[in-house]
Amino acid sequence: MKKYDIVIIGGGPAGVTCALSAKNTYPQKNVVLIRKESKPMIPCGIPYTLSTLESVSDNILVDSPLLKSRVEIINSEVQSREGKTICLSNGDEIQFDKLVIAAGSKAVMPNIEGSSLEGVYLVKKNKEYLENLKQQVKLSQKIVILGGGYIGVEVADELLKSGKDVTIVEMSDTLIPTMDDEFGVKAQEVISNNGGKIITGKSIVRILGDNVVEAVELNDGAKVDCDLVVISCGYKPNIEIAKNFDLLYEEGKGILVDDYLRTSEQDVFAIGDCAAKYDFFTSEFSNVMLASTAMAEGRLVGSNLFSIKVIRKYQGVLGTFSTKIGDTAFAISGINERRAKKRKLDYTIGYAKAVDRHPGKLPGAKAVTVKLVFSTYSHHLMGAQVMGGESVGELINMLSVMILNKMTDIDINTLQIGTHPMLTASPVVYPVINATTDAIKQWYRIQPQTEMVK
Amino acid sequence: MKKYDIVIIGGGPAGVTCALSAKNTYPQKNVVLIRKESKPMIPCGIPYTLSTLESVSDNILVDSPLLKSRVEIINSEVQSREGKTICLSNGDEIQFDKLVIAAGSKAVMPNIEGSSLEGVYLVKKNKEYLENLKQQVKLSQKIVILGGGYIGVEVADELLKSGKDVTIVEMSDTLIPTMDDEFGVKAQEVISNNGGKIITGKSIVRILGDNVVEAVELNDGAKVDCDLVVISCGYKPNIEIAKNFDLLYEEGKGILVDDYLRTSEQDVFAIGDCAAKYDFFTSEFSNVMLASTAMAEGRLVGSNLFSIKVIRKYQGVLGTFSTKIGDTAFAISGINERRAKKRKLDYTIGYAKAVDRHPGKLPGAKAVTVKLVFSTYSHHLMGAQVMGGESVGELINMLSVMILNKMTDIDINTLQIGTHPMLTASPVVYPVINATTDAIKQWYRIQPQTEMVK
Repeated sequence: MKKYDIVIIGGGPAGVTCALSAKNTYPQKNVVLIRKESKPMIPCGIPYTLSTLESVSDNILVDSPLLKSRVEIINSEVQSREGKTICLSNGDEIQFDKLVIAAGSKAVMPNIEGSSLEGVYLVKKNKEYLENLKQQVKLSQKIVILGGGYIGVEVADELLKSGKDVTIVEMSDTLIPTMDDEFGVKAQEVISNNGGKIITGKSIVRILGDNVVEAVELNDGAKVDCDLVVISCGYKPNIEIAKNFDLLYEEGKGILVDDYLRTSEQDVFAIGDCAAKYDFFTSEFSNVMLASTAMAEGRLVGSNLFSIKVIRKYQGVLGTFSTKIGDTAFAISGINERRAKKRKLDYTIGYAKAVDRHPGKLPGAKAVTVKLVFSTYSHHLMGAQVMGGESVGELINMLSVMILNKMTDIDINTLQIGTHPMLTASPVVYPVINATTDAIKQWYRIQPQTEMVK
Repeated sequence: MKKYDIVIIGGGPAGVTCALSAKNTYPQKNVVLIRKESKPMIPCGIPYTLSTLESVSDNILVDSPLLKSRVEIINSEVQSREGKTICLSNGDEIQFDKLVIAAGSKAVMPNIEGSSLEGVYLVKKNKEYLENLKQQVKLSQKIVILGGGYIGVEVADELLKSGKDVTIVEMSDTLIPTMDDEFGVKAQEVISNNGGKIITGKSIVRILGDNVVEAVELNDGAKVDCDLVVISCGYKPNIEIAKNFDLLYEEGKGILVDDYLRTSEQDVFAIGDCAAKYDFFTSEFSNVMLASTAMAEGRLVGSNLFSIKVIRKYQGVLGTFSTKIGDTAFAISGINERRAKKRKLDYTIGYAKAVDRHPGKLPGAKAVTVKLVFSTYSHHLMGAQVMGGESVGELINMLSVMILNKMTDIDINTLQIGTHPMLTASPVVYPVINATTDAIKQWYRIQPQTEMVK
């Protein structure tokens, strides 16, 4: 039986980052990473394996950083454990001093009649499965996607690129329901302009066909013919290991952890999609599953395995993410207006539109829209949504840093940022600042008399 | 004689932003903006008028935001003042309650023999002058640029795009001397690959020709033939108005102002390039002149004209800027390593390289390099330099927000950011975080025994 100082279960971004962080912090300790998938996928790259990338193999999370840091890798599945000993499906037994569970999440298959027909696929994080799906896509012409969240829309965008007839069916009234309506409407416009069909406010009640899928039936009785159905209805945390290991977990929410990602058992941590998360502002349970969040948790746990080196009062998940549909990028961090309303957060909205180059006649210029949600009384920035060109990917990270630092309207108003004709909006219309100014104007318009007290 | 509540002198980004901010904050006040240039240029867009933009008119700072906010505009020059009355060159007299000077800066003409020859140009912020230069560029083939800072390099890049034979002469050992050597070396590589010639560590002692420029002579005696010389040796603050108005100023540094940009005289403010500035970390005089800094000052003064509404302990200038040379973007915020060394700031460097898409085989992927300068004892991020694809423009703004918020290595290490295959680097190699990890590893590698105390 081999003994390791640190055992990490799971080869996705959380597990890999945690292993690297552990080796950085404790170079003398031996670390092993046990994973089910010998060729783990880059999770957010999966939609792009269907058309943009030539091969699914182009989307493998490479082993070189692990090997360079001398992290051992075992390709096997965890079956059970006894105290500090783990049994693997390959028959090996392994002892640990510290254990990190980074078991990830799995695609949800909704309870729909006909979901076991040939030609019905989930968006799984498994190389062989995706190779199969890619092959099936090539042979299909009419494709229905169930679920118009980020992944569903990304998959639709990919399939449109390869000339397929694509229909998205989404239960909510707009696409990307994690963002406010105006952003979903824009996503819908982009997909439509590229030839996609969108059915919102409807669900699929039945998948029809003999052995092979032939059509889907909606809740209003309408039928959509198709030869392939891709189901993208979200993911749920893998809690099987917690069950096996007798750790506290909540079905659907994940493994329960404290501020330092420690489970109910000393020396056992859980990170990434399999660990339960809470919202940054509202503290409610959060089903946001993001590689970047998983990675932040992996880094923290990697540093803190043997003693708490990095202090962190758990702030909850901001849920910063971005995507690109057609030629338009979309991104969000923190609270949107819909959720602010629903959770009774008193808020003030600031809006701005600009062109992301200046002057606007420069090549590559694209319109960018910023919507900010501020706390009306405490003045903190609580959330940001953006759509525009590719710079949106880092713009949302700047906004995320602002939210994390509890910046207020006035902090942002006196911000020192850089602008350049070929790279950003003009300083005069820089949309993050102008959206803040817009909010400030709403705050103070009711009290113009204050200026009389000069 | 007309009386205005607020008089702003200067129609550049500082003046315009201040006028808009004043109208937002004090909608009942009447505001006039007096400007010398009736068609003011977008300053940072000027290099792109030479080739990328069809016409110099495409680079005009438009009046529509001012007109929409009901700011009056007078195209005239300020000549003198008596108390609270200003005399203009068009004969008008104007009374003010609050006065803001946003007179900008002017291109420096070095003391070189032959600088008055035909075919010798500065990079002035004047439409007619630039139209003339653009015309001259069309007629020229061999062009020498004196000065390899941002603007010189941007002009070189533009002229190369239109097929000219371009030589840059820069006194320092590398181009863009405000950045560390490795970035200047990369800029040199980009310019060379596009056919430009670069002479560093040399200066021009003489411009040769009868009436019209024919060549330049370097300090080592070498001669470079040319039919056009563009001089880009920096800018100096316009302090003529301060002189006329009997306000405190320092030659070469600018009009002296306090934390709230108030001059030596009550009710008179100075903002933008014409106001003296100090460095964020070292407090030394800073000659950084940026539209984005000017704009931040404009917004502050606009709000604070009649009472201090926005509290701001003056933090000094970070000097956040970005540019794009060929297909590579460069950016800096805060302290670079050279200056950290020179000013005896105890520092630790973190480096990271990554690809700005993931997987790296996605179209448009470009290498990005991040160099961070941390304070060794206080652990604050003091400076950041980046080069890579176009996302660098907003990446540097995120870094600027981090510096302004005094974020430490550990704050950055536990950051929640978003990543997307089509927009950013992979979360596992996200370069801002990995450069921070690199610095952390250097800090702690000397004390591996700490981990024994578990």
